[in-house]
Amino acid sequence: MSAEERRPDTAFWVEPAAVQSDRLTLDPTETHHLLRVHRALPGAPFEAVDGTGHLYRCVLESADGGRAAGRILERVEGAGELARPVHLLVGLSSAGSVEAVVEHAVPLGAASIDFVAAERSGRPPLGPERLARLLRLARAGLKQSRRSRLPSLRSSASVEAALSALAPGRGYVADPGGVPWTDPPQTGIQKPVVISVGPPGAFTDRELATLLERGFSRIYLGPSRLTTETAAIALLSIVRK
Amino acid sequence: MSAEERRPDTAFWVEPAAVQSDRLTLDPTETHHLLRVHRALPGAPFEAVDGTGHLYRCVLESADGGRAAGRILERVEGAGELARPVHLLVGLSSAGSVEAVVEHAVPLGAASIDFVAAERSGRPPLGPERLARLLRLARAGLKQSRRSRLPSLRSSASVEAALSALAPGRGYVADPGGVPWTDPPQTGIQKPVVISVGPPGAFTDRELATLLERGFSRIYLGPSRLTTETAAIALLSIVRK
Repeated sequence: MSAEERRPDTAFWVEPAAVQSDRLTLDPTETHHLLRVHRALPGAPFEAVDGTGHLYRCVLESADGGRAAGRILERVEGAGELARPVHLLVGLSSAGSVEAVVEHAVPLGAASIDFVAAERSGRPPLGPERLARLLRLARAGLKQSRRSRLPSLRSSASVEAALSALAPGRGYVADPGGVPWTDPPQTGIQKPVVISVGPPGAFTDRELATLLERGFSRIYLGPSRLTTETAAIALLSIVRK
Repeated sequence: MSAEERRPDTAFWVEPAAVQSDRLTLDPTETHHLLRVHRALPGAPFEAVDGTGHLYRCVLESADGGRAAGRILERVEGAGELARPVHLLVGLSSAGSVEAVVEHAVPLGAASIDFVAAERSGRPPLGPERLARLLRLARAGLKQSRRSRLPSLRSSASVEAALSALAPGRGYVADPGGVPWTDPPQTGIQKPVVISVGPPGAFTDRELATLLERGFSRIYLGPSRLTTETAAIALLSIVRK
């Protein structure tokens, strides 16, 4: 087998503080994964991502004290990241729906996801423990998809609060009254994009009006009715391509 | 509340044989759902789909003998269906992956899904029991999304066998060596489309060559690595829009 073939089929997580100029150190969990699950021996190639936009191509040097140390051969900026950041504003729904969004939207490149407690969500915003659990899911998705920048996850108390947390950008909202997506003209400047999908039962007229006042365009996602999670994944897939 | 507001937020399943000219009858399970879960009373509006492309707008007339009978007010052909059939050819993967594809691809309008035992699937094609279970999932998705045509589900033993089961049409395969999707010119004729995504580990070179010989185009799905299920949902979302 070539070195490329032996390389584990995932990236490993490295804390930014554990990266020196040409060396990095994995934490005990990631070390275990590299040495025990992937049975890496000194000299084996592996990749690590730090969640802030860096991917490191490394070779394993040692594993003293339960911490794998790698020599950095190459540092790739923004590996696996979309040219244009896409932020998601998703109406808060059931736990299964929220996890499906994270599971698919992270590999698809979402820059951030805000699970908004919309008027028809019928539940309060996600608390710190739920968000921490989702962040672990997001980190696993990041490693598996070989992205390098960990999306931020939030849960705002309203559409207004969600919008105020976002930098200005082009916005799109899934709505049966909209028009099918057409690619906007290429401008060369890759401005961030915000896509939004209502909770089960849709955004209220008031929430939709708020989005439209902010310049959001309404996108029609076809003749069938989609769940919040399917609509969010579909709209992200269309916009990112 | 208006009649529209009282209408259950799902369609009900009706066997084609249970539809007469202006009446239809639900089976006991669907009747239970309409009467007990949605608490429908005579005069209540509801919708039924027969899986062969018909949606019926009805009012409940009676529920004698545990079977709800509805008077048909309107019959809609191809309700909730895409203008252009999109067939999926997905490399067979884990049970969770297969179910995620059905769960999202049915509401998104897939005309058929073939879970192909590709060379790197490492497992035999799905048997009749697994397919029957997936068909129940598909039926639930059909009702919830208010589509009217039940997709066919298959599990072919090879890429070649999967291709031979399909009518000719434009084909696309997710592949890192491809180009990003661009909408093909509108011809007015809505020919069927086949989209294909490899199993974990991708199609082999031989399988990819088979698809390319059949005229499939390679579509690049972005800089991150996607699982089979995420890639299938993303490619369907892009192609259907």
